Amino acid sequence: MRTSIATVCLSGTLAEKLRAAADAGFDGVEIFEQDLVVSPHSAEQIRQRAQDLGLTLDLFQPFRDFEGVEEEQFLKNLHRLEEKFKLMNRLGIEMILLCSNVGTATINDDDLFAEQLHRAADLAEKYNVKIAYEALAWGKFVNDFEHAHALVEKVNHKALGTCLDTFHILSRGWETDEVENIPAEKIFFVQLADAPKLSMDILSWSRHHRVFPGEGDFDLVKFMVHLAKTGYDGPISLEIFNDSFRKAEVGRTAIDGLRSLRWLEDQTWHALSAEDRPSALELRALPEVAEPEGVDFIEIATGRLGETIRVLHQLGFRLGGHHCSKQDYQVWTQGDVRIVVCDRGATGAPTTISAMGFDTPDPEAAHARAELLRAQTIDRPHIEGEVDLKGVYAPDGVELFFAGPSPDGMPEWLPEFGVEKQEAGLIEAIDHVNFAQPWQHFDEAVLFYTALMALETVREDEFPSPIGLVRNQVMRSPNDAVRLLLSVAPEDGEQGDFLNAAYPEHIALATADIVAVAERARKRGLDFLPVPENYYDDVQARFDLPQEFLDTLKENHLLYDRDENGEFLHFYTRTLGTLFFEVVERRGGFAGWGETNAPVRLAAQYREVRDLERGIPN
Amino acid sequence: MRTSIATVCLSGTLAEKLRAAADAGFDGVEIFEQDLVVSPHSAEQIRQRAQDLGLTLDLFQPFRDFEGVEEEQFLKNLHRLEEKFKLMNRLGIEMILLCSNVGTATINDDDLFAEQLHRAADLAEKYNVKIAYEALAWGKFVNDFEHAHALVEKVNHKALGTCLDTFHILSRGWETDEVENIPAEKIFFVQLADAPKLSMDILSWSRHHRVFPGEGDFDLVKFMVHLAKTGYDGPISLEIFNDSFRKAEVGRTAIDGLRSLRWLEDQTWHALSAEDRPSALELRALPEVAEPEGVDFIEIATGRLGETIRVLHQLGFRLGGHHCSKQDYQVWTQGDVRIVVCDRGATGAPTTISAMGFDTPDPEAAHARAELLRAQTIDRPHIEGEVDLKGVYAPDGVELFFAGPSPDGMPEWLPEFGVEKQEAGLIEAIDHVNFAQPWQHFDEAVLFYTALMALETVREDEFPSPIGLVRNQVMRSPNDAVRLLLSVAPEDGEQGDFLNAAYPEHIALATADIVAVAERARKRGLDFLPVPENYYDDVQARFDLPQEFLDTLKENHLLYDRDENGEFLHFYTRTLGTLFFEVVERRGGFAGWGETNAPVRLAAQYREVRDLERGIPN
Repeated sequence: MRTSIATVCLSGTLAEKLRAAADAGFDGVEIFEQDLVVSPHSAEQIRQRAQDLGLTLDLFQPFRDFEGVEEEQFLKNLHRLEEKFKLMNRLGIEMILLCSNVGTATINDDDLFAEQLHRAADLAEKYNVKIAYEALAWGKFVNDFEHAHALVEKVNHKALGTCLDTFHILSRGWETDEVENIPAEKIFFVQLADAPKLSMDILSWSRHHRVFPGEGDFDLVKFMVHLAKTGYDGPISLEIFNDSFRKAEVGRTAIDGLRSLRWLEDQTWHALSAEDRPSALELRALPEVAEPEGVDFIEIATGRLGETIRVLHQLGFRLGGHHCSKQDYQVWTQGDVRIVVCDRGATGAPTTISAMGFDTPDPEAAHARAELLRAQTIDRPHIEGEVDLKGVYAPDGVELFFAGPSPDGMPEWLPEFGVEKQEAGLIEAIDHVNFAQPWQHFDEAVLFYTALMALETVREDEFPSPIGLVRNQVMRSPNDAVRLLLSVAPEDGEQGDFLNAAYPEHIALATADIVAVAERARKRGLDFLPVPENYYDDVQARFDLPQEFLDTLKENHLLYDRDENGEFLHFYTRTLGTLFFEVVERRGGFAGWGETNAPVRLAAQYREVRDLERGIPN
Repeated sequence: MRTSIATVCLSGTLAEKLRAAADAGFDGVEIFEQDLVVSPHSAEQIRQRAQDLGLTLDLFQPFRDFEGVEEEQFLKNLHRLEEKFKLMNRLGIEMILLCSNVGTATINDDDLFAEQLHRAADLAEKYNVKIAYEALAWGKFVNDFEHAHALVEKVNHKALGTCLDTFHILSRGWETDEVENIPAEKIFFVQLADAPKLSMDILSWSRHHRVFPGEGDFDLVKFMVHLAKTGYDGPISLEIFNDSFRKAEVGRTAIDGLRSLRWLEDQTWHALSAEDRPSALELRALPEVAEPEGVDFIEIATGRLGETIRVLHQLGFRLGGHHCSKQDYQVWTQGDVRIVVCDRGATGAPTTISAMGFDTPDPEAAHARAELLRAQTIDRPHIEGEVDLKGVYAPDGVELFFAGPSPDGMPEWLPEFGVEKQEAGLIEAIDHVNFAQPWQHFDEAVLFYTALMALETVREDEFPSPIGLVRNQVMRSPNDAVRLLLSVAPEDGEQGDFLNAAYPEHIALATADIVAVAERARKRGLDFLPVPENYYDDVQARFDLPQEFLDTLKENHLLYDRDENGEFLHFYTRTLGTLFFEVVERRGGFAGWGETNAPVRLAAQYREVRDLERGIPN
C-alpha cells in the first residue's frame, strides 16, 4: 500500500516536515499550499529535497472556491488556478485537490458546475496535471461524495477525477458501500482521517479534532474494504487537522501516522476475502499478535529503595531474590504477582514504573509486528544462558516486554532470581495498571496498545482534581486478563511541575480479602492515603450501610463503591515519588475501577504534594 | 448587590477556595458538595472558617436525581436528602440546590413531581432549611425555568422556591422576559454564568466552557434587569464550570469573578429606569469611564538599548530627550507617536512593552472605577511638580496609565523630557498594539479591557503557526482611536520556552506612505523580517497585481492584502527579544489588520528563533 501524508498534519517548517515524513517511512507527501507559501525554499528546491529524501510529491492542496460562480468571477478563479498549475509544474506535482465551493458559489446548477470543471480540466491537460475534485461536508452546493463523483462522470474528462476523504464522508454518517461503484480510474486520490464522536459543528470538529486512523470512532476498515474492491491503487494519504499534532514533536507524529496506516492496512487485509486480497492496493498483512494472557511482571525503578521495599513488605510481598547477573535487580512476589525492583542507587530519584511484561502467546511474532509498526526495540544487555525477552518502548518511554506464557505460573526468567516456587498470598493478581500519559501522546498511546498489544478501548472518563480535569481511558484485553488505565493530567497550568507531581501512576493489586490485607498492612505500619471523614458521611448517605461495616471501612482507610452487579472496596498507599499502590477487592461482578472515588484520592494527593512543597514532612 | 461564588469555580482545596473568595471581596459562597467530600475539614470547621473570613455560606449544591421516580426509589432519595439536611445544619447552610432529575426519572407527571417536591419541602422545614429547585437544560422531564416555577407554585410551600441559572435559560435561547412574572418570594437563589456561542452539545458546553459574565455572548444585563424588577434581593452567585479556571491560580480567578459581578451590577444599574433603581438588588453604579481618545504613549523596557534605539531611528523616530529626574527613561517621537524607552542596563534582557498610556477624558474617575473593579494600582515614584499619572496593572502585568487628553497634541508630561514641540513625520500614529496573553488570562483580559478601558470586542480569529494555532481577539474603542490585539499562543507543547519566544508582541505604526518609510529604513540598514519569494507568487496568483507594483512590494519586504473597501500594505522588523515593530499603510477603508499574512510572519519568526537556538547568528 502506498502511504502518504499531508504536510498540514505535521508541525514545523516544510523542510522539517519532509524530513520527518521520510524518516517515518512514508512513500510520499501532499504539499499543503500554506506550508509552501511561508517557506523560504523555492518550488525547485522542495522538489529536489523530496527526491533526495525518496519521497514522491503526490498532491498539491487545497484549491478552494472555484465553481458555481458568475463568468467574470470564474475567469479570475481560472487565472488563480493556472498560476497554481505553473507552480505544480515547478514542483513536479501532477495532481491538485479542488474542494467543492464553500464560500463564493452563488449558482446551484450541476450543468454549470460541470461546464466550469470541464474548462478547469482542459486547462489542467495543457499543463499536464490532473484535478481531484472533493466534496467538502460543508460545501455550499456539493457536499457529498456521490454528488462529486456524478459531476466527474458528467464532465467525463481524463484530467478530472474524484478525491475521497473519509472525514467528509463519515462525519455526515454516510454509508460507504457506494464507494465500490466508483470506477477505479475516476478515483484520483484518497485521504484518510479518523475522529472521535463529538457533537459539535462539523467544521470545528474537522479543523481541530481529527485523529489518525485507529485513534477515533470511524469505521475506516469498512471504507478501505470498499475502496480495495474498486481496484484503486494510488496513495492512501493522511490528512489530519489536530490541535495537538500542530504543536507536538514532528518526528513522533509522523511515526504515529505511519503506524496508523500500517495497522489499517493489516486490518483491511484481514477484512477482505481471500480472492479480493491479491490485487487490492498491494496490501500486506502484519505478523499476528494474540491478546495477552496476563501480566508477567511489573518493574519499578527507584532511587529510594528503602521506602519502596518497606511498602512491598507491608502489602505482604516477599523478597524472591536478586538477579544472578544484574545485582541491582531484585524480585518481590505474592500470589501471581511479580514485582521486579531496580535499585538506581540512593539518589533520591522517585519510584516509577519502568517496565511491564505481558504474557504473550507468540513473543517473536508480536515483536516482529511491533517493529513493522515502527516501535523502537529495547536493547538490554544480557548474558549467555539468560532469558532474552523481546520488548519495545511505549509512547511514554515505559519498556514493554513480550514474555512467553507460563502455564505452570512460573515464568522462565524467574529462576534467574533464585526463585523456584511462587507462594500464594492474600494478593492474588494485578487488577490494573495506571500509566500517566503526557497529553500530547495520548491518542498515540491508544493506537499503540491497540495495534501492538491487542488491547481494546473500553470507556473514557473525566473527573475533577483540585487543579483540573483528569481524562482517563480504560483499555483491556478482550479476555480481561490485562487492564490498563491511561490517564492524562490537565495540560500545564500555572503550577507546572507541581501539578505533574500531583498525578502519580499506580499499580492496583487484587485480593479476595481486602480487610485482611489492610489489617496486616496497618500492623506493619503502612502509610495509608488518608480518607476524609466527610467521605464516609457521603458514602453513608448514598448507600445506607450497616454501622459495623462502615466502621470497618473507616478503620482500614477503605473506600467503597457499588453498582447493580457487585461491590468494590479499595485503599491507596501514600505516594512514593510518582507511584503509589492500590489494593482492590471486587465482590460480585462490579465492573468499574474506582473512578467514583478518584476525586477523593486526587484531592488527598494534591494536599500531600502541596504540604511537601511547603516543607511539611510527609 | 450581594455577591457569591460557587466553590466549583475555583481551583485548590476547599480551604484555599474560601480564602480566595474572601480576599477577592465576595459576600458569600456556595459549597459545592464534592469540595466538602474530599476535604479533611469537618462541616463545623468549614462553618467556623467561613465565619472568620466574613463569608456567608449561601447554598449547598447540587442535589441530583430526586423526583419523578417510583415510591421505593423515592424513599431512598428522601433518605439521601435528609442526610444532606443534617449536614447543612452542621454547616449552618439554609438553602440546598435541587436540580431537576436528569438520570433516574421514569414517570413524567407534574402531579407526581409536585407531590414528591412537597414531601421534600416538609422534610426541609423539619430541619429549618429551604430548597431551591432548578431546571437543568438537559433535565429529563423538567428542563425550563418556567416549568420549574410552575411546579413551585403548584406545591406552594414556604420551604420550596426556584433557582434561576442563566446558563440553563440562555443556552436554550429562551426569552428572559418571563422572569419578571415570578414573585420575588419564590425566587430562592440566582446563579449566573456567561458562555461563548459554541455549537456543541449543551452538556459539554456547560461543563467546560462557561465563563464569567462579560466574557461570553449571553445577554446577562437583560436578565438582570428583569430580575431586578421582581424585587429579588438575595445573592447573585457565579457558577462557572471552566477547564481553564479549574487549573488557574485561585486568587486571580476569584478577583476576575468579582470584577465580572461588579461590572454587571453597573451595567444593570444603567439599563434600569431611574424609578426602578432604588429598590433593585441594592445595585450600585461605578464611576463612569469614557472611551479613550487615543494612545498617549507606549513604554518599552530593554536590556539591549543599542539595538532598540537603532530600530527606532531606522523607522524615523527622533530622540526627544531624557526624563528630568528618571535618567533611565528617554522618549522617542514621530508624528503623534511617543515611545518611552526604559533602559534596564546592559543586561541583555529582551525588549518588552512595559506600559501604555491611554488618552482618557477623566483619569480620576477611570482610576476610581478600576480600583472598584479590583485592578491593582501602580505605585511609581515621582517627585513634586512632575505629572503623576494614575494607572493599574493589566492581567498580563503590563502597566496601563490613564493620561488626560492632550488637545494640542502635547501631553502634559512631555516637557519633563525636555520636549517642547513634537514634529510631524512619515509615521503618524499607532495603528494597533498587540499584547501576547498567557492562555489562562485570556478571558480575564477581555473583561478587563471591556470593563475598565471601555473597549469593545470586534472579532476573533485563529491562524496557524508552524507550532500550533494562535488565537487572536481584536478589541477597540468604539471611536476606533485605540485598537488592541490580544493573542494567545498555543498552550505549552513539548517545546516550552522555545515556543513562547516564537510568539512576540508588537507595535504597529501607521503611515500614509509605507514605501517612503521602508526606503528610509533600508537606507538606514533596518533588518526587515524576510518575506519568502513563494509568498509573492501567491499574492500574484490571488490579486494579479501590476508587475511594477509587485516589484516595489518585494524590494521593500512589504506584505499585501485587499478587501472590498481598500488595500493594506505592511512590513515587519526582526524581533528584538520578544517585541517587533510593524509599519502599516491603509489605503481606502481596509478593515483588517494583516491577519491573512500572519502565518507568513509566524513562520519566519519561528525559523528565526530556531536558528538562534542552533547558534546561527541573527
